[in-house]
Parts: sequence; C-alpha cells; structure tokens
Amino acid sequence: MAAEPLRIDDAGDPRIAGFVSIRERDLTGRDGLFIAEGTVVLRMLGSAPARQNGFAAEAILLLESRVAGVAEVLASFPETVPVYVAAAPVFDAIAGFNMHRGVLALGRKPAQAAALLPSLPETSLVLAGCGLSNHDNVGSIFRNAAAFGADAVFLDETSCDPLYRKAIRVSVGSVLTVPFSRGLAAEAMLRGLAEAGYEIWGLSPRGAVPVGEIPAARRIALVLGTEGEGLPETILSSFRTARIPQRPGLDSLNVATASGIALYQIALTMGRVA
Amino acid sequence: MAAEPLRIDDAGDPRIAGFVSIRERDLTGRDGLFIAEGTVVLRMLGSAPARQNGFAAEAILLLESRVAGVAEVLASFPETVPVYVAAAPVFDAIAGFNMHRGVLALGRKPAQAAALLPSLPETSLVLAGCGLSNHDNVGSIFRNAAAFGADAVFLDETSCDPLYRKAIRVSVGSVLTVPFSRGLAAEAMLRGLAEAGYEIWGLSPRGAVPVGEIPAARRIALVLGTEGEGLPETILSSFRTARIPQRPGLDSLNVATASGIALYQIALTMGRVA
Repeated sequence: MAAEPLRIDDAGDPRIAGFVSIRERDLTGRDGLFIAEGTVVLRMLGSAPARQNGFAAEAILLLESRVAGVAEVLASFPETVPVYVAAAPVFDAIAGFNMHRGVLALGRKPAQAAALLPSLPETSLVLAGCGLSNHDNVGSIFRNAAAFGADAVFLDETSCDPLYRKAIRVSVGSVLTVPFSRGLAAEAMLRGLAEAGYEIWGLSPRGAVPVGEIPAARRIALVLGTEGEGLPETILSSFRTARIPQRPGLDSLNVATASGIALYQIALTMGRVA
Repeated sequence: MAAEPLRIDDAGDPRIAGFVSIRERDLTGRDGLFIAEGTVVLRMLGSAPARQNGFAAEAILLLESRVAGVAEVLASFPETVPVYVAAAPVFDAIAGFNMHRGVLALGRKPAQAAALLPSLPETSLVLAGCGLSNHDNVGSIFRNAAAFGADAVFLDETSCDPLYRKAIRVSVGSVLTVPFSRGLAAEAMLRGLAEAGYEIWGLSPRGAVPVGEIPAARRIALVLGTEGEGLPETILSSFRTARIPQRPGLDSLNVATASGIALYQIALTMGRVA
C-alpha cells in the first residue's frame, strides 16, 4: 500500500516540485522521469509487468475528489511512494493546466536497461519501428502490441520516446508493460533481429505478399515505417515485405491501424490468439 | 479549373469572411458549411465521388507559397469557385491560428441528402456507429471504411458530425467520399438495415464468434459502439456479435483500430480485397 495521503495546500510546496508545469517538462524529457496520467495508466505503473520492466513510481498526486476512487490502485504501490492530495485550484496551479483526470504520477525509468533481445522467449513476435515520430501513433502501436501479445517493441534512433506523456496516455499505459528498447540505427536494429533468428517482414502498401500469407515462424519481427513516407527503399529491398490488402488508389492506412491489422493477422497465423 | 487566384491583403476583407476564426466556427457547426484543411482533403473535395455525394466548394483560401503546389488540385474545381491567396500574416489573421498547412476550403454540405439505404449496391458492406462521440475516432473509421471499400457509414443520433473540421482531417477527406447518413436512433437505424437484408454483426470484446468466422454474405453491416462502454446490451442481445481475438485481461482495442481489423477481415471474407 502506498503511503497515507499528504495534503498539499500550496502549489509552491517543494514536495510536489516534480509535478510543476508538466506540460513544459513533457517537451524536454530530461532526468529519467516521466509523467503518468489517469487511473488506467496509474494502474499499469503499479502492475507487476511494469515493475519487472524496471519502472517505479516516485510520487503520486491526486485531486482530492479522486482519492476514494483509486484506493484499490494505490494498494499496488509500496508504502515508500508518497501520495499527495490537493483541491482543484491547487492541483491546477501545480500541473500548469486543467487536469480533468485528477490523477498524476511521477515515474522513474529503469536505471540501466538489461539487453532486451537476449531476454525474449524462444517463440516470439516483436515490432520494429523506423522513424515513428508521432507520439499518438507510437502510443497506439504499443496498445496494439499489448492487445495481440507482442513480446517487445524495438524503436530506431529516429523514433520518438514512448515515455513522452501523450504517448503513455494513448498507449493506455502499455509502454510500461510491453518491453521496449530504442536507440540503434534502423539497419543495425534489424540486422540484430535477423541474427537472433527473427524473420523480418517490412509492412508497406507495396509489400510483396498479403499479410495473411506471412508463414508461421518461431520468431517474427514486423517492421513499421513512418506515416506518409513509409519504410525506406534500403530496408524494403533487404528484407521480405508484406502488404495489407485494400482498395487501390487511396491514401494508405494510418500506421497505427496498419500495425493493429498486421499484428491481428500474424498473431492468428502464429496461433497466439484465438 | 477554379477561378484565377485573387489576392487578399486585409483579414477583414468581406470576401473571405467565411474563413474567419475557423476554430470557433468548428465548435458550432452551423449553416451547412464545413472547413477542409490541407492538400489531401482539398483533393478529395474536388473529386468525383465527393461531387456525387453532393459536396461542393464555396471558396478556397491559400497561403501564397502553396499556390504552385496545388495547381493540379485546383484544376478539379469549377471556375465558379473563387480562390483567394494571402501572405502568411494575413492568412494567420484570417484563420485565427497558425495554419501551417496553408490550404483551406470552405465546403457546402448537400442541400437535401437522398435516402442512402436504397442507393446501395446489391452486394455491400456498411458500417453502423452507435454513440461514436470522438471526432478522431470517427475520422479514423471513415479512413478505414475507404481503405477497405465499405459502401456507406450509418451513424446514430448520438454520434458526432463527421464534417467537424478535425474529423475531416483525420479521415484524410474520406468523409466526403464514403457516403454516410446520421440521425436515427440506434435501434431504428439497425432495424432499417436488417429490413434491407443486411446481416447485422455487433463488434464487442464479448462477441460470440471471432471476426474471422463471420460468414460471407450478400450484405453485411458491422456495428461499432462507443470507446469505453462499447455497444449497449439491448443491441448486443438483439443481433449477432463478433470479437477480435486478443490477449485477455487488457483494455480493449481502440474503436477505430478495431474497425480497421474487422473491416480487413470481413472484406477478405467477402472477397472485396485481395
């Protein structure tokens, strides 16, 4: 159980300094911390998979009217995690804008992430993102990864940080529970996956086979490119490619939706959902 | 070809009054007009399907630096459509916020829509939305409907207007090309579809069969409920239901993503895409 709630009456109180102007902080992404918003995300932050992935809560800040509603969620945090409570005017003054959800946590990223690739199960399905720069799309992709039981998400150095506030919210907290790593150049990332025995499939409107014809395999990596441009030619020509059958002549599907459709189909083919 | 561009040097010029403060206008949705933003949406507004659906452009407003880039798109509009051009400061002063896309059109809704249901082809796939109140989701759902060749979208009276600016943008203009109607109570809407020979399938995490087992049929209507609550029990118990196979115990998929997955699967089953 998290600590007994402490009342905050002054937005300048140093104990809640970490929550001040989170919209600004959002843009900087410094210092190993991130902001979790809303009850669903708070629940994920306190869950066993998030702990396993090395995430921890530094502090929790609640609107006083929300305390009773999240009691069960607070029970999942250790009692060393301070819980602060504020009335609406103080809460809004702290957060810097009108936080209607009234549930915030300051989370801490894993100090040093263990290498993700060697930790994955013998049979696995992973996503690899190249140039995914839109936080909404990245959040949605993690949500889909969780829904279809993907084992991990790999993001290249040009993809955005999934621990940006909005990506966490759109993912409904899945960025905390689906293991991910980020930072390699796209080619190195995909080469590493191929060397670890993953069949690499690039998803593209110009892909060679329909996603339904991707054969079952022990290890599959589905590669997603940026919305608009799609995957670069160097990647499309180096690996096998698949497409989602659709009407010709239209703007292609949104990349997050495409990831959901392809994951659905591959998870079915691999017998991972039923 | 649309008319020769006319230069606007004053944000108060009465000729461009329709574009003033479009963010405000957005919230009111009055007077049979709507705002189309960006080149992709402008192209859709000028397309044959949009004209067939009764949409027309009232006027076009461009940032001067964008004129050359959209020349080919302008060619698809009749020359009775005025085209206004402004420099960035005037453009921003007109629109009321920084419009980086620099491409706006004022569109007019169909005066009196013909009844949609009797106009549909003998073999058809349609979507029916109940309580879809989020503009992003509605826009995404239309984009998916276009990608998988759905013949129409029916929205109940509690669903939001797809001609809201943001929904149009997220749909990449598909709300102008995929025929839709909106306004009946959910039960009456679904009864009408059933009477017209549509097999009605409600999509729900608690659905009875996996979407892959929906049998091919001459006419299928896929019913979507609101994000969060899902379809009401009265609908789920009155019609057949399907689910998207996924990992248990998680927040269900986003409704727009779910629509994409179900449409993909049903379009495959019906042999409408390959």
